[in-house]
Amino acid sequence: MSDDPKIDGARLWDSLMQMAAIGATDKGGCNRQALTDHDKEGRDLFVAWAEAAGCSITVDAIGNIFARLEGSDPSAEPVLMGSHLDTQATGGKFDGVYGVLAGLEVVRTLVDAQARFANPLEVAVWTNEEGCRFAPAMLGSGVMSGTYSLEDAYAATDKEGLRLGDELERIGYRGEVPASPRPYAAMLEAHIEQGPILEAEEKTIGVVTGIQGAHWFDLKVIGQSAHAGPTPMTMRKDPWRAVAPIVSQVLALADAQAPWGRATIGDISARPGARNTVPHTLSLSLDIRHPDADVLAAMEADMRRIIETACAEAEVDFALEEVWHMPPTAFAPHLVDAIEQAAGALGYAHMRLVSGAGHDSLHTAQFAPTAMIFVPCADGLSHNELESAEPADLEAGANVLLKAVATLAGVTIG
Amino acid sequence: MSDDPKIDGARLWDSLMQMAAIGATDKGGCNRQALTDHDKEGRDLFVAWAEAAGCSITVDAIGNIFARLEGSDPSAEPVLMGSHLDTQATGGKFDGVYGVLAGLEVVRTLVDAQARFANPLEVAVWTNEEGCRFAPAMLGSGVMSGTYSLEDAYAATDKEGLRLGDELERIGYRGEVPASPRPYAAMLEAHIEQGPILEAEEKTIGVVTGIQGAHWFDLKVIGQSAHAGPTPMTMRKDPWRAVAPIVSQVLALADAQAPWGRATIGDISARPGARNTVPHTLSLSLDIRHPDADVLAAMEADMRRIIETACAEAEVDFALEEVWHMPPTAFAPHLVDAIEQAAGALGYAHMRLVSGAGHDSLHTAQFAPTAMIFVPCADGLSHNELESAEPADLEAGANVLLKAVATLAGVTIG
Repeated sequence: MSDDPKIDGARLWDSLMQMAAIGATDKGGCNRQALTDHDKEGRDLFVAWAEAAGCSITVDAIGNIFARLEGSDPSAEPVLMGSHLDTQATGGKFDGVYGVLAGLEVVRTLVDAQARFANPLEVAVWTNEEGCRFAPAMLGSGVMSGTYSLEDAYAATDKEGLRLGDELERIGYRGEVPASPRPYAAMLEAHIEQGPILEAEEKTIGVVTGIQGAHWFDLKVIGQSAHAGPTPMTMRKDPWRAVAPIVSQVLALADAQAPWGRATIGDISARPGARNTVPHTLSLSLDIRHPDADVLAAMEADMRRIIETACAEAEVDFALEEVWHMPPTAFAPHLVDAIEQAAGALGYAHMRLVSGAGHDSLHTAQFAPTAMIFVPCADGLSHNELESAEPADLEAGANVLLKAVATLAGVTIG
Repeated sequence: MSDDPKIDGARLWDSLMQMAAIGATDKGGCNRQALTDHDKEGRDLFVAWAEAAGCSITVDAIGNIFARLEGSDPSAEPVLMGSHLDTQATGGKFDGVYGVLAGLEVVRTLVDAQARFANPLEVAVWTNEEGCRFAPAMLGSGVMSGTYSLEDAYAATDKEGLRLGDELERIGYRGEVPASPRPYAAMLEAHIEQGPILEAEEKTIGVVTGIQGAHWFDLKVIGQSAHAGPTPMTMRKDPWRAVAPIVSQVLALADAQAPWGRATIGDISARPGARNTVPHTLSLSLDIRHPDADVLAAMEADMRRIIETACAEAEVDFALEEVWHMPPTAFAPHLVDAIEQAAGALGYAHMRLVSGAGHDSLHTAQFAPTAMIFVPCADGLSHNELESAEPADLEAGANVLLKAVATLAGVTIG
C-alpha cells in the first residue's frame, strides 16, 4: 500500500472513554461484568459503532459478536481481530476493551481511507472473558474452540444462581450462529500487557510469542499440633520445617529459569492458626509457569522432588493436588514475525515477550493462526480500577495492528 | 513423721470425676468457664468438701477461695496449695482441678491421720485462670500479686458484654477480704504437665524449677503485590523471600538452645491471599521462649537481627510489634529441693523441668516462695476435651505434695 493510513489516536481514546463510562466506578475503573445490563449497553454501543462503519453483525450461540467488513474476495478466510468488553467487578478501562476498539479503529481507518483489500475483516467481542461472574474465564472463545460445551456454558451460574444461558437471552445476545470453529486467515488480539516488562524496558510494543503454561497446586503439609511452651523442639512435628525450605527452593526453581520461569505462593493458612500452638497443617497454593512445555514439565518434576524431600526430612506428611493446568500456547510464527515487522517499520521500540496471563487468544489459537500485540500499562497494574495506559501507546499498538492486518488482508489504497 | 500417711488415690479420682461432671461435655471434657453457673457449682462443691474436712472458708474481693485448716501455731505463715477450677470452653478434666483437689486430698489425709502440724494449711481456688471468658488469664492470682488492679479486673467483659465484677456478684463469690499479698511459708501447685516430656522420659513426677519466659510478636513483612504470570521474578518484591529464611532461622535459634529454647510460628496470613497474585504482605506470629532471662534476651536480639537482615536482603519492609512478654519465673530453690526429695523418698521416677505454660504460680511467686509438681498427661494433650492422666500418676503427685507439705508444716503423726 502506498500512502499508509494511520490510526486516529484521539478517536480511539474517545471511544475507549465512551465505553469506560458504561459501568464506571467512583475510583476511575469499570464494573461491566459479563451479561449484566452494563455489558448489554457496552455491546450495543459497539454494535452501533461497527454498523456505522459499514460492518454486518452476527452473534453466535454463546453471545460472541462478530462485526464483519467484506473484502473484495468473499470466499477468502477472514482476518479476525478483537478481545472482550466485560470487566472485573473492580476492573479497569483497558483490559479487553482496547483489543476490541483497536480492531474497530482499524476498520474505521480503512473505511475512511477507502482502502481495498481481499479478505473480509472481522472484529470479535468474546463473551465472559473475565470469569468473575460466571466460571470459567475465557468462556466465549472457549466454547467456539470446543474447549467447553455450549450446554455446560449455559448452565454456569453466578453467585445469585442466575444461569448464563438465561442472562444471555435476557440481554438479547443469544445468537443463532453456531459457536464452533470457522476458518480464519489470522486472529490478532491487541491488549495491555498486564505486567511490568514493557514499561521497565521502555518499549512501546510487545511482540507476543505465546502464552505461558501454568500449573496450579494446593499443597497441604501435615505435622502435629503442640503447645508452643511445653513441647521441646525435638518432640515437634512442625510443618514449617518443610514449608520454609519448600518456599525457598520453589522460588529458586523459577529464578533458575529466568526470565520466563515464574513461581508464586499466593496464599497460605495455618491450622489451628493460634499464636501459642504449633500448627498441625500449613496449606499453601503453588503456581509455577513457563512458556516452554518441556521446561515447565521439568520445573514441575523438580517441585515434586523438593516437596517430597523436604517433607521426608522434616518427618511430616503432605498432600499435593493439582487444581488447574494450562499448557503453554505458542503463537503462529508468521504472525509474530508480521507484528514484529510492522512495529519495526513504524519505528516503535519493541521486544518479544510471552504473555503471563491467559487471553481469548489461547482458545483462538486452537482453530486459527493467532498472535498478540501488547502495549505498556502503568506499573503493570491490571484487574484494578487504577489500570492506566498512555494514549500514545494505545495509538501505537493500534497502528501495529493496522499495519499487520493490512499486510495479511492485502490492503491497497487509492 | 513416723507412720507416713498416704493419699487415698481412689478418693482423689472420685473427687476429680465428681468435679468433672459439672459442665461435662459430650466428648469427655469440661466446659466450666470462669464465673458461669457451672463455675459456681464447682466452687460450691469444693467449699462443701473443704468444710466437711474441717476447713474455714474465706473469699477475697476477686473471688479467690481459701480453705484453711488451722495448725498448732495460728501465728505461723500458712503453707498454701491449690490451683483453679475454671476450664477452657473445650477443656479437660484435670487442668487446674487436679491442683485444687490434690490440695484438698492432702488436708483430708492429714485430718484422717489425726496429724499434728504447726503451720496453717490453705487450699486456694484462683479465679479465672484460663482467660478464655475474661482476659487476661491468671487473673485472680494476678490481682492478689498486684499485677492487675481490682478495678481493671472487675471491668473485664466477656464477649456478651457481661462484666466480671457483676458476674462475681451474681454467683455469690465477691468476698470481703482484700485481694492483696499475705505472708505465706510456701505455695505448692500440683498440675498436669500439659507437655510431652514426662511421658517421653517415662517419669512420674516433674520437679518444676520455674516457668519459661516468653515473647510474643506480630511480624508483618511488606513487599508489593504483582500478577503471578506477567511479573518476572527479578521485578518482584515478594515477602516470601524474607519470610522463608526468617522462619528457618528463628526455628534454628530455638534448636541451638535445646532443650529449653522454643520458637513457634503459630499463625500466618497472606494479603491479598489470591493464588495468582504475589502477596504484598505476609503477617505471622512469632513466639520465642526460654527459662533463662539472659538467654531469652539473646534469642530476642538474634531474632531481630535475623528479621532485619532477611528483609534488607529481600528488599522488603517489615513491622515487628511485641504483643506480650512474660519474664521467666524461677521457683524457690528450697521448695524445688523439697519436692525433689519427697519424690525420691517415695521412690517415684522424677526429673527437673521447666513449665512451658503460664500458671497461677507465676503470680504467687511474686509474694510467696513457690514451686510446682507436674504429673504426666497423655500425649502432652491439654486445653482439649481428650486431656487424660493416669490415676496412679495423679495419686503419686498428690503424695509428693503431701510429703513436701508435711515437711514444710512440721507434720507429726500419732
